[in-house]
Amino acid sequence: MPRRDMRYLPPRAKPLTAGPRRLSLAPVRIVHVPLGRRSYDIKIGPGVLGRLGQECARLGLRGRCAIISDSNVAPRFARGARQSLSKSAFESAVISVPAGETAKSLKSAQACYDQLAAHRLERKSFIVALGGGVVGDLAGFVAATYLRGIAFLQVPTTLLAQVDSSVGGKVGVNLKAGKNLVGAFYQPRLVLCDLDTLATLPAREYRAGLAEVIKYGIIYDAGLFELLERDLPKLLDREPKTLASVVARCCEIKAEVVRQDETESGLRAILNFGHTIGHALEASSHFGKYLHGEAIAIGQVAAAKLSAEVLGLPGRAVERITNLFRRAGLPTALRLNRPQQQRLVATMKLDKKVSGGEIKFVLARRIGSAEFGHRVPRGLIERAIT
Amino acid sequence: MPRRDMRYLPPRAKPLTAGPRRLSLAPVRIVHVPLGRRSYDIKIGPGVLGRLGQECARLGLRGRCAIISDSNVAPRFARGARQSLSKSAFESAVISVPAGETAKSLKSAQACYDQLAAHRLERKSFIVALGGGVVGDLAGFVAATYLRGIAFLQVPTTLLAQVDSSVGGKVGVNLKAGKNLVGAFYQPRLVLCDLDTLATLPAREYRAGLAEVIKYGIIYDAGLFELLERDLPKLLDREPKTLASVVARCCEIKAEVVRQDETESGLRAILNFGHTIGHALEASSHFGKYLHGEAIAIGQVAAAKLSAEVLGLPGRAVERITNLFRRAGLPTALRLNRPQQQRLVATMKLDKKVSGGEIKFVLARRIGSAEFGHRVPRGLIERAIT
Repeated sequence: MPRRDMRYLPPRAKPLTAGPRRLSLAPVRIVHVPLGRRSYDIKIGPGVLGRLGQECARLGLRGRCAIISDSNVAPRFARGARQSLSKSAFESAVISVPAGETAKSLKSAQACYDQLAAHRLERKSFIVALGGGVVGDLAGFVAATYLRGIAFLQVPTTLLAQVDSSVGGKVGVNLKAGKNLVGAFYQPRLVLCDLDTLATLPAREYRAGLAEVIKYGIIYDAGLFELLERDLPKLLDREPKTLASVVARCCEIKAEVVRQDETESGLRAILNFGHTIGHALEASSHFGKYLHGEAIAIGQVAAAKLSAEVLGLPGRAVERITNLFRRAGLPTALRLNRPQQQRLVATMKLDKKVSGGEIKFVLARRIGSAEFGHRVPRGLIERAIT
Repeated sequence: MPRRDMRYLPPRAKPLTAGPRRLSLAPVRIVHVPLGRRSYDIKIGPGVLGRLGQECARLGLRGRCAIISDSNVAPRFARGARQSLSKSAFESAVISVPAGETAKSLKSAQACYDQLAAHRLERKSFIVALGGGVVGDLAGFVAATYLRGIAFLQVPTTLLAQVDSSVGGKVGVNLKAGKNLVGAFYQPRLVLCDLDTLATLPAREYRAGLAEVIKYGIIYDAGLFELLERDLPKLLDREPKTLASVVARCCEIKAEVVRQDETESGLRAILNFGHTIGHALEASSHFGKYLHGEAIAIGQVAAAKLSAEVLGLPGRAVERITNLFRRAGLPTALRLNRPQQQRLVATMKLDKKVSGGEIKFVLARRIGSAEFGHRVPRGLIERAIT
């Protein structure tokens, strides 16, 4: 039974200093993901959703398509997406799944497949994933497997999905036994990050997205980390220019890592910094209900502590990391008793990155540089998550 | 409601002339499937299942694996498979699904995933598909998607699976709306065709496999077709040498077609000769319960008639084709009333090969040569299936 005091309670949402706003003046930035025949662009800017139809036509797509979205996002953005598609002569159907992580299941996939068949989607049809990470992962998996694979586009509407899950082709659903245990590597044909969709994102979700943004700084780009330390208030304020350049920089880093290692035989694993512990926290309801970004904030702080013990990451760096997450309004620690610690470590062993029964960690040697494949003694893990 | 007299009743199984026998004297034949990094061998011969463990070791696989099989095949062959794996230090678990086409579902896939997770299969673990086409397609799909893809081997135990479904990497499950609507292209690391497993195959299933064998003659190899006309009695008798060379020749043809067009952008479609009508017959319970081979026997005879009308396939060739299926003990025609015809054509429109709402057919210009992409007027289709 979860104990009430163990649950994470997010900080009460402060009103945004400047309120939600349309960022329609910033230019569109393009990040190219170079993967040979599977290459594609990420287009980042305010209002790019309005270009959906044109972009599909440019890609040479034609005929029918399905927009897969959820019960939160569809009422806000599906109409605009359909109008844009319709202007370019695409016939679209909307498939809406319930909002939330539970939609990332084979059951939802089954419901999507049945509706795709009912709408007579064919091999040349395509899918538009319109929503956050859950929708993108589910819709991408459905696209990867319907008729052995049809084209799909990502239109991420959360910060987390824009900087992380929509890029790189990891798609999938959860099992009871763990997150993302079923899936595929399947690249989208295009990613459209419409920054306007972030304006109305609830504060808690927006902050959760910042956890992945901070991650890129830790694992790959000390300059980005410093920029975040400096400009965090602007970013929390969703200041248009800062947001545009930060989203683009994160996509660039992700694209670069994915280019070097598309199917995660090595380097790509660094993107999982903080995720081994984070996934375990999400998989087990014993620890409260965390958003993915919140869980990996805790995971990253723990991973930073392990990095100090195993790789000699300076204590000052661990502090800077912890502080940045804290300033972003994200949780940084758990208070677990011993049985809870043990349960958490047992859940970690189901992670996909486990090999030969051993849990391997991504650790940082310094801010801006991470390494994969470090074995960590169980005792250290338990201490880091205390 | 299905009318009793519309159902196909297979001919009563005759006792085999020579009875089931072990074919243990024939040599092992190897057919290479050249697909770059995804290349693999098909090893064909009596008793090759006994080499499963060695072969896995040779492939560099290690650790745990799962044998996915069904309630008919597992009791006969799973023990031998496990012993062989165990001799080469592989730890295996057996996952058995109910025998029959209904196991080719997302529900079965879910059950397999859950057991793989329970047995703690990891990224470096692998799956052995031990059974007929249903098991191969299901297990292959599960392998393609568990942890975003783990290695798998095909050990087909039916004639149909040995000459067709185990080779080429098409894996998947059915939806209510149609067969194989969900799946992937995912190549096995090895195919082991143990001819001994065919000795105990029920006569009806064995004959159903011959429908795919005959197909290779029609679409690709007039010499094979003539050999079948001549040696059919030996083949029906499961005469070791004939069987070995015929299975190997079919695998060669399939490998060659798949090499030229792995993901079916063109040529590979010729392998679907007779399948548009055949799949529709299987998908709809209105027409009786056909085995896949029986349904595509009817489909191929209908496709031959369409070929005569559209491509000028000589009437004599249509007769030879019809006769060969008939001599193999396979059904060659349906008797449908007009509403049934219309229902069948409607079902065909859900086929994956449909494009822009149009049904396209694979047709033969002569025995030994087929072409994809022929549009056929609806009236002709209805006449051909009468």
